[in-house]
Amino acid sequence: MHILDIISKKKQGIKLTKEEIYYVVNGYTDGIIPDYQISALLMAIYFKGMDAEETSTLTMAMVESGDQIDLSSIEGIKVDKHSTGGVGDKVSLIVIPLVASLGIPVAKLSGRGLGHTGGTIDKLESIEGFDIGLSMEKFIDNVNRYKMAIAGQTGDLTPADKKLYALRDVTATVDSVPLIASSIMSKKIASGSDAIVLDVKVGNGAFMKTLEEARVLAEAMVSIGKGLGRNTVAVLTNMNEPLGREVGNANEVREAIAALKGEAGEDLISVSVTIASYMAVLGKAFEDLETAEKAILESIRNGKAMEQFELLVKIQGGNAEQIRHPETLPTAQIEIPVIAREEGYVHEIKAQEIGTAAMLLGAGRETKDDLIDYAAGIHLEKKVGDRVENGDVLCILLTNREDYQDAYNKALESYEINEEQPEKIPFILDVIS
Amino acid sequence: MHILDIISKKKQGIKLTKEEIYYVVNGYTDGIIPDYQISALLMAIYFKGMDAEETSTLTMAMVESGDQIDLSSIEGIKVDKHSTGGVGDKVSLIVIPLVASLGIPVAKLSGRGLGHTGGTIDKLESIEGFDIGLSMEKFIDNVNRYKMAIAGQTGDLTPADKKLYALRDVTATVDSVPLIASSIMSKKIASGSDAIVLDVKVGNGAFMKTLEEARVLAEAMVSIGKGLGRNTVAVLTNMNEPLGREVGNANEVREAIAALKGEAGEDLISVSVTIASYMAVLGKAFEDLETAEKAILESIRNGKAMEQFELLVKIQGGNAEQIRHPETLPTAQIEIPVIAREEGYVHEIKAQEIGTAAMLLGAGRETKDDLIDYAAGIHLEKKVGDRVENGDVLCILLTNREDYQDAYNKALESYEINEEQPEKIPFILDVIS
Repeated sequence: MHILDIISKKKQGIKLTKEEIYYVVNGYTDGIIPDYQISALLMAIYFKGMDAEETSTLTMAMVESGDQIDLSSIEGIKVDKHSTGGVGDKVSLIVIPLVASLGIPVAKLSGRGLGHTGGTIDKLESIEGFDIGLSMEKFIDNVNRYKMAIAGQTGDLTPADKKLYALRDVTATVDSVPLIASSIMSKKIASGSDAIVLDVKVGNGAFMKTLEEARVLAEAMVSIGKGLGRNTVAVLTNMNEPLGREVGNANEVREAIAALKGEAGEDLISVSVTIASYMAVLGKAFEDLETAEKAILESIRNGKAMEQFELLVKIQGGNAEQIRHPETLPTAQIEIPVIAREEGYVHEIKAQEIGTAAMLLGAGRETKDDLIDYAAGIHLEKKVGDRVENGDVLCILLTNREDYQDAYNKALESYEINEEQPEKIPFILDVIS
Repeated sequence: MHILDIISKKKQGIKLTKEEIYYVVNGYTDGIIPDYQISALLMAIYFKGMDAEETSTLTMAMVESGDQIDLSSIEGIKVDKHSTGGVGDKVSLIVIPLVASLGIPVAKLSGRGLGHTGGTIDKLESIEGFDIGLSMEKFIDNVNRYKMAIAGQTGDLTPADKKLYALRDVTATVDSVPLIASSIMSKKIASGSDAIVLDVKVGNGAFMKTLEEARVLAEAMVSIGKGLGRNTVAVLTNMNEPLGREVGNANEVREAIAALKGEAGEDLISVSVTIASYMAVLGKAFEDLETAEKAILESIRNGKAMEQFELLVKIQGGNAEQIRHPETLPTAQIEIPVIAREEGYVHEIKAQEIGTAAMLLGAGRETKDDLIDYAAGIHLEKKVGDRVENGDVLCILLTNREDYQDAYNKALESYEINEEQPEKIPFILDVIS
């Protein structure tokens, strides 16, 4: 088998065989095939695509390139949840206790964030003592006992994906549906879950800018999941503004707590309940979505969801007192209101810009070794559809840094304000299953 | 300027600026931009192409990446000739003395061959004593005095092209018209000629398999040449069989001598005379092609062409006696006739296969350091259109190696013999100017 022939084939749009795809993935992971040949192949894949079978094969080849987590000793159907990445996305914080409160096991392995804010485990670490470094034994034991656990990824999961992603990142070959879909799904499958709910973000703040693009990606991922025996549903959700009103870490935990009490904004509650309901259905706890949704909402209403979150914090060594008194979570020394200089309606809040502003305030990492300031972030006072007068507060910067001017400008620029009232975009745009 | 942005632009089919193209070429040549980014860009260029302006700019950037030969001290218009590569292509051996015999300066810098047979200078080295290592001073002096000189390339011409070509070769990005055209033209322009005649080979034995593909390449090259102030003509010639009857080195020199006496086959004479005539016209020695052709044919008839070839050999230290007695050039110990096992008409002689067979017999180099056996090669007894009976000799292997079986099989397989008489394909398929 020759890599040159494989590149040539793909270049001509000819389907690659299973053997060829494994040869590429293993050869690259083992350092036998050099970067420059793989990047040429990736660009050919960008132009010529891969069909469902090739994409599934690529996914499995990446899964098999490293460790695979064995969750078989956990009783029940283990449902995982993955977001393609948005700003203000604290949905995992909400759905883990929500789903677990219905008796459905949630075994969540999560990565740290690089970029605008921390990832789910970073956010949880803003709670005093919260330990995400559970051993696999403890992790599985917690899920069996309490129906939930969250931990940072351990082991060498999908090293092929890591190496390929790094190369895609520097060769302008990130935005290829089969490559994105297989990258995401390989990580989910290696993490050992039986079923997967995907939150595919759509809009200016997401990787997929339009509903059409997002549908194509969602269909590719659902097809991979089903093809590999993992029941998979993709929920397409709006990201034309950050989700909820908080962007950061501790403030996002506070907002998640509010959501678990039913006190957060409609967008956050709606997305979280929908995702949790699909997880409950895939976990076979309910026959259909409506029944699941009712149970989920009831769990919020009767306080079970909130209790479950407290339990999560407790069993992972966190200070549950902070959950009962969220105001004791880290807060910033400096609060700077960002003031509108025009009037009209908010049409868009560029989520990437808000994310970058939050990072500049200390909420995210620019490089892997940066420390996160859990207190830093942005509170959105105005959301899409709101009326704004000149001089109104658009959002509030939360920081411990004196040099917030760049963040201020970015936050201000991220608000697109127009004369006309915008049409309302639904929170849930589509569901692919 | 960022290479990632440049890859992205080309991926989207957006035209690159002059600054971007120079940044890429210089950055790669200097080792600042890594292979894996350039190979992704090359694949994007394969898919999205480059327009005439981009291709010219790429050509000049490669020219300026290294030394440029200054032929300005040679009087008159210096016309160069380039072949895109065929099998049995001894046209340069013929046109150099032919054109020089009309008083038009020919300053030929030539590379060695890698592959089926030697290049032009390898073939000339089958003549005892022939020196291709002229100093630039001697080279120019010879052209001024005798109207001709041929030498191996010296100096560091187009290092960017060398590096890019090596990368294209291992990333399946060779077959891109703007990349091929700029690669060829950059070498010609760096070699210092004022005008260029391109022999673009078309057919199974050539890089361009169809007339349409060949026209596109020819037009791209002519456009580059003219755009950069070098009058350029492309002659498209048939390569559905090797050119002439000899494939090798010394035997090709013998056939070139025959052609200079007007005694070679029609295909070789026709192609050589046409190329030489266009060189004469671009050299402004004649008003039009017909007049040039008449003069060229007269030079063959009256022996001037042959005298000029003898002079070339003499002034470059070769044994001119061998030219007067070509049978004294190296001959092989072993001659193996390849016997037809079917009857019909020869439709095609797969030139690449014949070339490989010749290489296996010792006529070419597999690696840069291999030695050429000047005596080795293949004599074609049957040519396209010929009637063949079972048991007829198709061709004769010339070798000093006992293990000629693979070459025999390749040579036999290269003949495609069918019942019906094939249509005659013209030697000259088109001219682009």
